[in-house]
Amino acid sequence: MKAEIITIGDEILIGQIVDTNSAWIAHELNSIEIDIVRKSSIPDNKIEIFKAIDYAKKEADIIILTGGLGPTDDDYTKDALAEYFNSKLILNLEVLRQIEVFILKRGSEMNVRNRNQALVPDNCKVIPNNRGTAPGMWFNFDGKILISMPGVPFEMKAMMTNNILPELSKLTTDLQIIHKLVLTQGIAESKLAELLEDWESKLPKEIKVAYLPSPGIIKLRLTAKSSSTLWLESILSEQIEKLSHVIPDYICGYNAETLEEVVGKTLTEKMLTLSVAESCTGGNISHLITRVSGSSNYFKGSIVAYSNEIKESFLGLNKRILDKYGAVSKQTVEGMALGARLLFKTDYAIATSGIAGPTGGTEDKPVGTIWIAVSDNKGVYSKKFIFGDQREQNIQRSSLTAFNMLLRRIDNKEM
Amino acid sequence: MKAEIITIGDEILIGQIVDTNSAWIAHELNSIEIDIVRKSSIPDNKIEIFKAIDYAKKEADIIILTGGLGPTDDDYTKDALAEYFNSKLILNLEVLRQIEVFILKRGSEMNVRNRNQALVPDNCKVIPNNRGTAPGMWFNFDGKILISMPGVPFEMKAMMTNNILPELSKLTTDLQIIHKLVLTQGIAESKLAELLEDWESKLPKEIKVAYLPSPGIIKLRLTAKSSSTLWLESILSEQIEKLSHVIPDYICGYNAETLEEVVGKTLTEKMLTLSVAESCTGGNISHLITRVSGSSNYFKGSIVAYSNEIKESFLGLNKRILDKYGAVSKQTVEGMALGARLLFKTDYAIATSGIAGPTGGTEDKPVGTIWIAVSDNKGVYSKKFIFGDQREQNIQRSSLTAFNMLLRRIDNKEM
Repeated sequence: MKAEIITIGDEILIGQIVDTNSAWIAHELNSIEIDIVRKSSIPDNKIEIFKAIDYAKKEADIIILTGGLGPTDDDYTKDALAEYFNSKLILNLEVLRQIEVFILKRGSEMNVRNRNQALVPDNCKVIPNNRGTAPGMWFNFDGKILISMPGVPFEMKAMMTNNILPELSKLTTDLQIIHKLVLTQGIAESKLAELLEDWESKLPKEIKVAYLPSPGIIKLRLTAKSSSTLWLESILSEQIEKLSHVIPDYICGYNAETLEEVVGKTLTEKMLTLSVAESCTGGNISHLITRVSGSSNYFKGSIVAYSNEIKESFLGLNKRILDKYGAVSKQTVEGMALGARLLFKTDYAIATSGIAGPTGGTEDKPVGTIWIAVSDNKGVYSKKFIFGDQREQNIQRSSLTAFNMLLRRIDNKEM
Repeated sequence: MKAEIITIGDEILIGQIVDTNSAWIAHELNSIEIDIVRKSSIPDNKIEIFKAIDYAKKEADIIILTGGLGPTDDDYTKDALAEYFNSKLILNLEVLRQIEVFILKRGSEMNVRNRNQALVPDNCKVIPNNRGTAPGMWFNFDGKILISMPGVPFEMKAMMTNNILPELSKLTTDLQIIHKLVLTQGIAESKLAELLEDWESKLPKEIKVAYLPSPGIIKLRLTAKSSSTLWLESILSEQIEKLSHVIPDYICGYNAETLEEVVGKTLTEKMLTLSVAESCTGGNISHLITRVSGSSNYFKGSIVAYSNEIKESFLGLNKRILDKYGAVSKQTVEGMALGARLLFKTDYAIATSGIAGPTGGTEDKPVGTIWIAVSDNKGVYSKKFIFGDQREQNIQRSSLTAFNMLLRRIDNKEM
């Protein structure tokens, strides 16, 4: 089945908020085999709502609307739907009771705006809202389904999860869809595509590949559809196994959204601990690691040493090494990693030192020159990279590259 | 003028990524008086691209496309546009040279896919991409404009800022537009709107206000249009002066995009230095500070102490204090701030300790309980906050709240 998602709200069109609802909805619908043919965002305006529904119903079996159901004067969706379906707004006593309970629980009093929220078109099935006052609405028309929900993410998500997804999943086909992610690091998209040309051309027709690039990492998404989950799992595993031989040096993880999650899983599974000494990455490595819930099980801490004195006094770096080779050098970054591992008493430590830019470059060491080191109980390993001239990108790429080096070191792979 | 934004990419329709490009583009176009009539997201598919352009051109004067310009086989936008406009793809030598320079700088070699990116439709004006290999394209057709850009946010943003917005703004108006930003911290949007009701109602008609909320900070954007820049500057200054008396406790900066920039400017101007001891924020404070170019002038470093041992051994915290009051306490966070300031020998130090969640809460200290301290040569000041149950939000709000406390302390304001 095919769906279109329409988000309604002036605040989306002026760029005041980023629409996160539609990605979440798309992901959930996908998981019950509903393909999204289009997403659109339109203003709070009746005519635009009519036009959007007319356009959507040409292709979609299911039209999902969010937004425009609030109690204030700038919300039009409910009136627009009543008009579109030529139906009357009637007071729904069950909804009214829900709203009353909701308002009272919060120590407020019902006003006329709250009461008006219990008016619903007479041709819709009401979807209860247990997290807010605006009910959801389900319309069947011309063999199609239109569902309208509030735009507040946590109200919408509860409705979807508790009511809409269970209903819709009864209607979908028997085809299963499975996605697998393969994370790659250290290779440009065009180069990766070149290496994968042969592998891609020989893929079974059930499998599609997409490249999802972001600074420092490219995710490959393999999507397969078939009537048998077992079969899907087996052909996907087979192809991912093949892939691992085509680009062994670049794969850094599977079925995780981020590299820091892969790091977290790996360290947890192997019961290893990690510390960090950061110079050019300025805390970003620690931040990425600690974004992952549960990271306190493997992450002990880090030192952000943004000056040479700190590198000396905290990490035990020899002043002569700093003076002789400079802060951005193999000797310094290896000393930092070693120092961190000993100080924090961890199994592994990673360290970075480089010139993030935009200033600070020299002829020898241009902006983007980054040294990264990993220390474990067998030694210290380091590597130099030359990235670009964008500060934030250099920080992000350095961080992800450090994670990749750590993972390879843990796996005893060459770096 | 009216515009439609079309984002192209299967990854958007399956909900794998949240589209942040269109909100940014909408916001920028809005600032040069271009209204967004609709935003839509469509798959990487020629027919869908044709349909989307046909539908958009009914209403929009300007059609902005992002995405689908990568070097891989799942990108169709350029071919689709050539076909749509019935034009030929020709090798653009200038683009080819840019790509070569870009690739060589990164120590890679050109391959045929990179070379193919220099093929552009013969009826378009090329928009240079100085952050990647896919050129942008500008088409004039039927009195309308179609612009195609890569979907990678930082490539797209550079193209928009350097080339497209200056060009488009020539077409829109002769009026001068000036934006001023006022950063507020520590107040909810609805409460802020209530406090500003009177001030807003008395604004000169040339001035419009927008609320730009994000976790931990709400930016107020004042936009004024007139034919005289001097006049604009004077009425804006007057209103911002008035505003500073209405919400003196919540304003934390002016005319900066981020609070860390305000921190940077303030520390630089006053020649002060800063260090950090982070527990629950896990490196995010250091990361935000060091994102700002030039931060090495005032930022000495930080310790991310993710375990009690580290708080003891690095920051000199007394074990008895940790045992008696716990890691999330006034005593601990003040000890951390004091320890950091002394160790790093800085004028100021900030420290955080709390329960970012989603687990780890207790009855006494629920998830979202965060202590923040600021230490200077006059003493240590701390405050407890109870934020929500979302880990990333708690980390971000704690970081920005710490910046605000620092700025207030520097200004000798109450915290």
